[in-house]
Amino acid sequence: MDDSTHQQRRHVLIHDPTLRDGHHAVGHQLDADQLHAYATAANAAGVAVVEVGHGNGLGASSLQIGRAKLPDPVMLTTVRDALTRSKMGVFMAPGWGTADDLHAAVHHGADVVRIAAHCTEADITERHLGIARDLGAEAQGVLLMSHMASPDQLAAQCSLLVQFGAQAVGIMDSAGHYLPADVIGRIHAITEAVDVPVIFHGHNNLSLAVANSLAAVEAGAGIIDATARGFGAGAGNTQLEVLVAVLERRGFDTGIDLRQVLAAADVAEERLMKAPPVIDSIALVSGVAGVFSGFKQPVLETARREGVDPVDLFLALGERQVVAGQEDMIGEVAQQLKAADR
Amino acid sequence: MDDSTHQQRRHVLIHDPTLRDGHHAVGHQLDADQLHAYATAANAAGVAVVEVGHGNGLGASSLQIGRAKLPDPVMLTTVRDALTRSKMGVFMAPGWGTADDLHAAVHHGADVVRIAAHCTEADITERHLGIARDLGAEAQGVLLMSHMASPDQLAAQCSLLVQFGAQAVGIMDSAGHYLPADVIGRIHAITEAVDVPVIFHGHNNLSLAVANSLAAVEAGAGIIDATARGFGAGAGNTQLEVLVAVLERRGFDTGIDLRQVLAAADVAEERLMKAPPVIDSIALVSGVAGVFSGFKQPVLETARREGVDPVDLFLALGERQVVAGQEDMIGEVAQQLKAADR
Repeated sequence: MDDSTHQQRRHVLIHDPTLRDGHHAVGHQLDADQLHAYATAANAAGVAVVEVGHGNGLGASSLQIGRAKLPDPVMLTTVRDALTRSKMGVFMAPGWGTADDLHAAVHHGADVVRIAAHCTEADITERHLGIARDLGAEAQGVLLMSHMASPDQLAAQCSLLVQFGAQAVGIMDSAGHYLPADVIGRIHAITEAVDVPVIFHGHNNLSLAVANSLAAVEAGAGIIDATARGFGAGAGNTQLEVLVAVLERRGFDTGIDLRQVLAAADVAEERLMKAPPVIDSIALVSGVAGVFSGFKQPVLETARREGVDPVDLFLALGERQVVAGQEDMIGEVAQQLKAADR
Repeated sequence: MDDSTHQQRRHVLIHDPTLRDGHHAVGHQLDADQLHAYATAANAAGVAVVEVGHGNGLGASSLQIGRAKLPDPVMLTTVRDALTRSKMGVFMAPGWGTADDLHAAVHHGADVVRIAAHCTEADITERHLGIARDLGAEAQGVLLMSHMASPDQLAAQCSLLVQFGAQAVGIMDSAGHYLPADVIGRIHAITEAVDVPVIFHGHNNLSLAVANSLAAVEAGAGIIDATARGFGAGAGNTQLEVLVAVLERRGFDTGIDLRQVLAAADVAEERLMKAPPVIDSIALVSGVAGVFSGFKQPVLETARREGVDPVDLFLALGERQVVAGQEDMIGEVAQQLKAADR
């Protein structure tokens, strides 16, 4: 941890999905004024990339997982209009988003395109990473629910993403399950396997998102995701303004002004959220169980409807290793718990 | 971090100052029903020590730093009545508390007596540590604002505490200023200097309280302070239920039942607090500046009254290295900022 090369102001790029991951916390209902206000503040602070969209990414607005207030093109043109220094980013999981969504996003000004896959399914990203490159966007590949794969598996999957054209690759702690030692092992394995910047995206279910992000940077990650006041699904994401203060204290250069990013965080708290994220009992159990943070609301609703304990439901979903997209399982597992209870 | 001895379920004692440090967040206004409800829940969860009192400890209730709703003896007998498994703890900083307060506390059932001093002032604890031992209580010594002293200084001060009779000694990150590497260096130095269990008490201003506590345990600390839902001054303390989950994941034995501690945290959230602590801009700046978390309210009030930016005021107080007890400085520094601004 005292590697002196870290003291020489190595640059760490901060990627800010406040207007995408934060959408999970408000049912994807941010309006154009809210998007514009936050994007303006983040741009002023010097955030490298402002990511925007439905919580589940391009094309994901739907009855089942929630309709966004605004269509993707409106979100993109609104944020684009506010950015003078920051790049604009989009997130897409093939299956929810399509090639058409990708074309439209780049047409509307997306500079950075993230293609996401479950941690062992990098092969599904080939076509869309290729399209992103062909469109001239910066293409990135990320692995969801990455705690479910070993360091070696993740390194191999990241190599595949690079082979498909990704210019940065990395891992998302979708469930907020990692301890710092877990992150260090995985980031080391990935940085040894690829020659592109490595991304880490944390969630705060175990109150370790900032610590895990710092550990990722010290292990060699070059791009860290963080959101204002931690705005995001469940217990929230890595808290942007805190991460900036911590990385700068530790000798890294984020290119972000602390006072301006505090102002952006205040805008986020006042304009975007009902209340800042909290690690409540459900969020904690979700992290312990390793279940996708976005499951919180549906799990609570199903538990209430079926009369089962949401803590039991989360732990059972964790045992069954459910992943994002398998929301159907929630009702099924709840039924099984009820049956077992009789 | 992969030291295999850590995997053998080493016991870590959890000391819970929810009903003492949490008092800072509610102007010391917890009533008997609230104290009893939380103490009952913490006792059921298997928390080792339930600490109770005014936020600043025995004898601190006063006009200047805030009057507690209940006198010390009433708080103590109320909590004592709820405990069947957990010990009861009290905190005292000589100057605020006196020998009489200590006698009364042990008379009313305090098992564990913590005597606190500024990080370089251990010599003021000799008399009260001696009294605690003479009364048959378990005597502990802790150093406040410990980031202001070096590892070697802290080790020397802790040795002095042991010499005075302390049966456990340690450091409080009163300002929430530490990074994990800072904690590791200090805990290592202290564990090498003393033969008694070492205490770590974190605050969450940099979102690192759980990570710092984990680092402290891995560096050899044996007693960790944590409060339900992080209830405490400013950005709050190490979040108890999260710490339990993380330590158990990492192979340590806390003796605490996760479901029961989640229930206790729910009691704390519903019964004790207006809202769980959040790392807002002021709390973050307070941690960056290294200013005592309990200064938040007076700093905000003074900034409003004097028309200065609270962020500037915190940073200026940090530069002047003010410590708990120097609340008078807040107005003085605000005046200086105003004068400089003209």
